[in-house]
Amino acid sequence: MTIAPIPALAPLSAAEISTCAAIVQGAFARGTKLHFKFLMLQEPPKELILEYLNAVKEERPCRPIERRAFVAYYIKDTPLFHEAIVSLTQSKILSNARLPDDVHGCLDGSEQEELERISLSNPSVQAALAELQLPKGAFVVGEAWMYGSDGVNDTRRQYQVYLYMRDPKNPSEPDSNHYAFPLPVSPVFDASTKELIRIDTLPTGTGFEAEKVKPWKPKPANEYLPECQESLRTDIKPLRVIQPDGPSFRMSKVGDQGSIVEWQKWSFQTGFNQREGLILYNIHYEGRSLFYRMSLSEMSVPYGDPRMPYHRKAAFDLGDAGAGATANNLQLGCDCLGVIQYLDGVVTDTEGKPEARDNCVCIHEQDSGIGWKHTNFRTNRAVVTRGRELVLQTILTLANYEYILAFVFNQAGEIHYEVRATGILNTQPIDDDLFESVYGTVVHPGVLAAVHQHLFSLRVDPAIEGQNNRLVYDEANPLPRHPATNPHGVGYVVKETVVDKSGGYDLNVATSRTYKIQNASVKNSINKKSVGYKIQVPPVQTLIADSESYHYKRAEFADHQIYVTKYRDDEFYAGGKYTNQSRGGTGVRYWAGRNDNVKDEDIVVWVQFGLNHIPRIEDFPVMPVEILRVAFKPANFFTKNPAMDVPPSTQNVNQSRLAQALDSDCCGPRL
Amino acid sequence: MTIAPIPALAPLSAAEISTCAAIVQGAFARGTKLHFKFLMLQEPPKELILEYLNAVKEERPCRPIERRAFVAYYIKDTPLFHEAIVSLTQSKILSNARLPDDVHGCLDGSEQEELERISLSNPSVQAALAELQLPKGAFVVGEAWMYGSDGVNDTRRQYQVYLYMRDPKNPSEPDSNHYAFPLPVSPVFDASTKELIRIDTLPTGTGFEAEKVKPWKPKPANEYLPECQESLRTDIKPLRVIQPDGPSFRMSKVGDQGSIVEWQKWSFQTGFNQREGLILYNIHYEGRSLFYRMSLSEMSVPYGDPRMPYHRKAAFDLGDAGAGATANNLQLGCDCLGVIQYLDGVVTDTEGKPEARDNCVCIHEQDSGIGWKHTNFRTNRAVVTRGRELVLQTILTLANYEYILAFVFNQAGEIHYEVRATGILNTQPIDDDLFESVYGTVVHPGVLAAVHQHLFSLRVDPAIEGQNNRLVYDEANPLPRHPATNPHGVGYVVKETVVDKSGGYDLNVATSRTYKIQNASVKNSINKKSVGYKIQVPPVQTLIADSESYHYKRAEFADHQIYVTKYRDDEFYAGGKYTNQSRGGTGVRYWAGRNDNVKDEDIVVWVQFGLNHIPRIEDFPVMPVEILRVAFKPANFFTKNPAMDVPPSTQNVNQSRLAQALDSDCCGPRL
Repeated sequence: MTIAPIPALAPLSAAEISTCAAIVQGAFARGTKLHFKFLMLQEPPKELILEYLNAVKEERPCRPIERRAFVAYYIKDTPLFHEAIVSLTQSKILSNARLPDDVHGCLDGSEQEELERISLSNPSVQAALAELQLPKGAFVVGEAWMYGSDGVNDTRRQYQVYLYMRDPKNPSEPDSNHYAFPLPVSPVFDASTKELIRIDTLPTGTGFEAEKVKPWKPKPANEYLPECQESLRTDIKPLRVIQPDGPSFRMSKVGDQGSIVEWQKWSFQTGFNQREGLILYNIHYEGRSLFYRMSLSEMSVPYGDPRMPYHRKAAFDLGDAGAGATANNLQLGCDCLGVIQYLDGVVTDTEGKPEARDNCVCIHEQDSGIGWKHTNFRTNRAVVTRGRELVLQTILTLANYEYILAFVFNQAGEIHYEVRATGILNTQPIDDDLFESVYGTVVHPGVLAAVHQHLFSLRVDPAIEGQNNRLVYDEANPLPRHPATNPHGVGYVVKETVVDKSGGYDLNVATSRTYKIQNASVKNSINKKSVGYKIQVPPVQTLIADSESYHYKRAEFADHQIYVTKYRDDEFYAGGKYTNQSRGGTGVRYWAGRNDNVKDEDIVVWVQFGLNHIPRIEDFPVMPVEILRVAFKPANFFTKNPAMDVPPSTQNVNQSRLAQALDSDCCGPRL
Repeated sequence: MTIAPIPALAPLSAAEISTCAAIVQGAFARGTKLHFKFLMLQEPPKELILEYLNAVKEERPCRPIERRAFVAYYIKDTPLFHEAIVSLTQSKILSNARLPDDVHGCLDGSEQEELERISLSNPSVQAALAELQLPKGAFVVGEAWMYGSDGVNDTRRQYQVYLYMRDPKNPSEPDSNHYAFPLPVSPVFDASTKELIRIDTLPTGTGFEAEKVKPWKPKPANEYLPECQESLRTDIKPLRVIQPDGPSFRMSKVGDQGSIVEWQKWSFQTGFNQREGLILYNIHYEGRSLFYRMSLSEMSVPYGDPRMPYHRKAAFDLGDAGAGATANNLQLGCDCLGVIQYLDGVVTDTEGKPEARDNCVCIHEQDSGIGWKHTNFRTNRAVVTRGRELVLQTILTLANYEYILAFVFNQAGEIHYEVRATGILNTQPIDDDLFESVYGTVVHPGVLAAVHQHLFSLRVDPAIEGQNNRLVYDEANPLPRHPATNPHGVGYVVKETVVDKSGGYDLNVATSRTYKIQNASVKNSINKKSVGYKIQVPPVQTLIADSESYHYKRAEFADHQIYVTKYRDDEFYAGGKYTNQSRGGTGVRYWAGRNDNVKDEDIVVWVQFGLNHIPRIEDFPVMPVEILRVAFKPANFFTKNPAMDVPPSTQNVNQSRLAQALDSDCCGPRL
C-alpha cells in the first residue's frame, strides 16, 4: 500500500536553487557580492500539506502550495547577515531582513579554506610558528574551527584556527594524518574581514594556564593510510552479498529531488537538505500513518577541557556546518555492500550555485540475523525467519570526524536510527614528558585527546494514526509487601503517566522508564489499549557543563533525553536556527518553555542520545565505529507481531554453504 | 599466532560419558536405577592448567592432569539426590555424597514429558478440566514448570504443571500454539513419586484471589505456523552471503569435543557442556592473553504477578534446565546464513547415555557495516574499511521461549556477547471480559502475558596479560566552577576508582560509570596507562523483588550489574550449583560476601544485563527478537586502533551492484 507523493516537500532542484539565488541577488545593486550560507526549501506549513493529503485522499482538487525557499546570506566580506524567504512560484522575495549583530551564519568549506590560507601566510602566525623550531620542510595545516561562545568579546563572528603538521618525514603526503602533530599556537581571525585578532598559545602542561612554547622535538607519525601501515592483513577472505532477483524495495520520484520508497509494507517519502541531510516524511506501515517527519535535528559536541581557548570548543555540526553540506559521496563496494540504490542530493554553494551531492544516500537491504524463532520441543519442529532490514545511510565528514547515520526499517514494524561515530579524534598538543592529564588521554606521543560528549537530537514529528498524539511513559515499581496483595514480596506493577505539558523529561533506569507516543483516540482492537509506538533510547549522561555555561545555554536540548513540544511551523532545529556562536534561547528548551498542553495535540518529540567520549588510545588514529541505536517499536499498535507473515527461512532460498565442504587448505577450517 | 591446545578442558566425549555413568552405576546394587541430572567435565583446578600452559611454553614436561567428571543423580523415583566426582583416569569414584533434602536436581525433558502424561491422565485433573466445559475434541497440553520457592511447604521437589489447549478447531495439529489457550487449573506433582499434591486454580480476574472457574468460551486461535497465516509475504527477494574463497577462520580439534578457533589475530579454545552450553577458554589476541574463560553463567526470569501460584514463577534456565541440554540443532540456511562451520556437542541423558547435540554451535563470519572511515576533506581521499565479525551462535529452547546467544569477535579487538530474546511469551488465562490488568498485558483474547524480568549473568574470568587483574571504574564529574580552574563552568574530569573488595557494584548513568579490567603491572608503551579492557553493559533495572523474597535470595546476582569475586575453583554458577527450588546462599552474592581482596588478584567478574519485559501485543504469538549486547573493548591495551591494518574496502573484492543496473520490473527500483 503506497502513499501519495507530496511534491511540495521535495527538496529544491538545482534550477530552483539558481533561480532563487538570482532573485535574491537581484535585490542588490550590481556588483554587490553575496555569500550564501543556507539556501534550501522552506517547508510549507503542515496545515497545507495535511489539506493536500486530504484532498488527494478524497480525490478532490486542492489549493496550490507555493514553492518557497529559505535563504541566509551575508553581504560578502561583511558582517551583514540576512535572512530571506523567496517565493519561487511568484519569483519574488517575500521577506528579507538583516539579522542582529550576534546572530551568525554557519561555517562553510570555502571560507574555511580561505582562512587556512590566510592564517598560514600571516607574518605574525609565521613568527609564532618559528618559535616552535619545526623541522626543515615542515608542512603546517590549519583547521578553521567554529569559535564557540563564552560571552567574552565574542559578538563578532570569528574563527579559531588550530594548527597541525604533516609527518615531517613525509611532508609531501597530502593525506598525512596531521592530527598526530598538533601545534601549540592557534590564531583567531575575524570571519568577515579576515583580520588576525590574536594568537592564542595553547596550554600543554598540567596547569590551567598556557606556558611559553617549547621547541618541537621529533616524534613518530601515526598514519591511517593503508600504504603507511607496516603490513595489512592478508587473511580476510572476500564476503559478498548478492541478490540475484534484485532488491525488495521499489522507488519512484517525487518532484526533482524527492522519492517515495516502498518496502515490506513500509512507505515513506525522502528529502534531503543542506542542514539536516536525509529527511523522511509521511512514514506509513500498511497504509497506517506513523510519523509525519523524522530527521536528525542537531548535535552538540562540547569538550571538557576548561582551559582557554578549549573552554569554547563545542561543535553543533548540523547548525554550524550541515549534514547535507558535508555528506560523503558513497562508493559502491566500499561504503555500501550488496545491491545498492543511491540518491543524489543538491545543496547550494556560497555563490548561490547548485552543488551536487551525488550518492549522498545509499539504500540497501541487509540480513539482520534471526528475526523470530520458535521450536516446539515436543515435535522438534522449528519455525525460524531471518530478519531483513532496509537501510538508508548517509555519512558526514566534519573535518577530523565522521558520522555514519542510518535509518533502518525492519519487518516487525520497527524503525531504528543508528549512529556510528568514527573518524579522527580532535587532538591538542601536550608536553612530551606528560602522560597523565585530567583533561583527556594521551593517544600518541605529544598528543592529547580531550574528553568530550556527543549529544544528538533526533526530531520526531509523530502522526500515529493521525496528528493528535500524546507522550506517555511507563514505569515499573515494586508492589509494597502486604499480606493481602503481595505476601511474598515479588510483585511489581507498571504505571503509565501522561505527559501533559511541553518540557524536558528524563529516563530512569531504576524504574525502566520508557516513553511511548500514543493516539488515545484509536484503540487496539484486541486489548483496547491506545495504539502507540515506544521509544527505546540508550541512557546517557546528559550535558555536564553547568547551567550558567554557554555550552548549556547553546545546547538547548542536551540536558534531557526527551523533550516534547507542541508543533509549530518552522521549529526544526533543536539548537536553534543559527548555532554558530549562538547564545541560546532559540531552540527546543525555549519552545518547551511555552508550557503548552501536549496531551492529544500535534506534538513533536525530540530524542536525545549520545556518548561521553573518554578517549582510549585505541580510538587513534581513526577510531573503530562506536555504535548507538535508538528504536521506535510498535506498542499495542498491531494486533500481533507484524512479522508473523514473513516466510520461514529455507536453504533453498538462502543457499548457505558448509565450511566443511570447502577444500581444506591451510586457511580453511581444519576440523 | 596460535595458542596451545588444552586437552584437559575439552568436554567429555561420548565414550567418557558412558564410562563415567557405568562407574557410578557400579557403586550400586544391581537393579538400582539411577536418574542422571548432570554428568559433565569437572574442570581441573586452574592452577594445574596454568602449570600445563607454562610447561608447554617452556617446552618441558608437565605432570599429567587427571580427567574427572562431575555427576549429579537421583536414585530413580526417589528424592535421594547425590553428587559425585569420578576419575576417568583412574576409573573410580573419588567422592560421592547424598545431598541435603532441600537441594534438588534440575528439570529434564524425559521427566517433564512423564509429568505431562501423568497430569493429563490423572482423574482429579480430568475432573477439574471437566468443569471448564472445553469444546468437544479439545486437546490439552501440559507443561511441567519448575516449582520455584516461597518457603511454604516446598522442601520436596515438585512440578507446577500449567495446562493449555491446542486450537479446538484444529486439535490434531501437534504444533498448534497452545499458549493462546491457557487454562485456569494447574496441578502440582511430587517430582519423585509423581503423586498429585493439589490442583491450583489460577487467578484470572482483577483480584488477588482465584475465583471459581468459568466455563470456557470460544476464542480465536493465534498460530505462528506459516501454513496458518492468512498469507505470507511474497515480496522479499533472496539475499545471499557468499565467500568464494571460503571463510577466514581456521580450526583444529582439541581432544574429542573441543576445538581451537583462529581468526583475525584472535585465538581461543571452545568447550560445551550441558549446563552452560558454549564456553570459551584462553582467549588471546595476537598471542596476548585476555580472558581465561567466558560463558553465560546463569539467568533469572522472575515474574511480577504476586498471585498464587505465580508468585513462585522464576526460571533459572541454565541451572534449572541447561543451555547445552536445550541447545537447538542449527540448520544451514535457516538459523545460519553464509558459509558455516558447525560444532557438535554431546550431553548426558537421564540414563547416563551420551546424547548428541549436533550442530549446537554455528560459526560464521558476517559483514558488520563500516568498521572505520576517514575522508580528508582537502583531498577528498576516503579510507574506509568494512568491519568483519566472527560469530559463534547457539540457540536454546526453554519450553515456550528461545534465547539466541552469540559471542561476536571483531577486528578492533572487541568481543561482544549478544542475546536475542524470542520465542513465545509464557501466558496465563484472564477473564474474557477483562482487558486491563495491573499484572501484565492482554496479548490475545483471554490471554495475559505477565510482566517479568530477564536477568543474565555472564561469567568473565579475565587474564589480561596474566592472571592478576583488577577491576576499576571511571566516572565523569563536572569540575566545580572556579575562577582559576573552570571559569566558564564547562570543565569535567574523569576519575578512576579501584575496586578493592569483592562485592556487588552498580552502574551510574549520571556519571557515565564504566568498569574496566586492568593489569596494573603491565603498562601501555605509549601512554603508560595500565593495559585493560572496558566493559560496556547496557544499564537495566535490576531485580525488583524485595530483599526478603525468595526471588531475591535465589537470584544471587540479579541485584547488581557487576559482581567481582576472587577466583576459587568450582565457582562457576552465579545462582549456585543447584538452582531448582533453591533457597539462596550458594552463589555469587555469597562468594562476594567473603570480602576478599580483589585488587591485583586472580579475579572473576560477573556481568549482569537484561530487560524488564513489559509485554506488548506485538510480542505474541512469537516475539520479534529483542537484542542485548555487552561489549568488551580494549582500553589502552593496544597502542592504536588494532584494526588499522584491515585493508580498505574495494569494489574489486566486494563486488556490489547498482540497483539501477537491474531490469526495472514492477518490483525493482523505478527511480
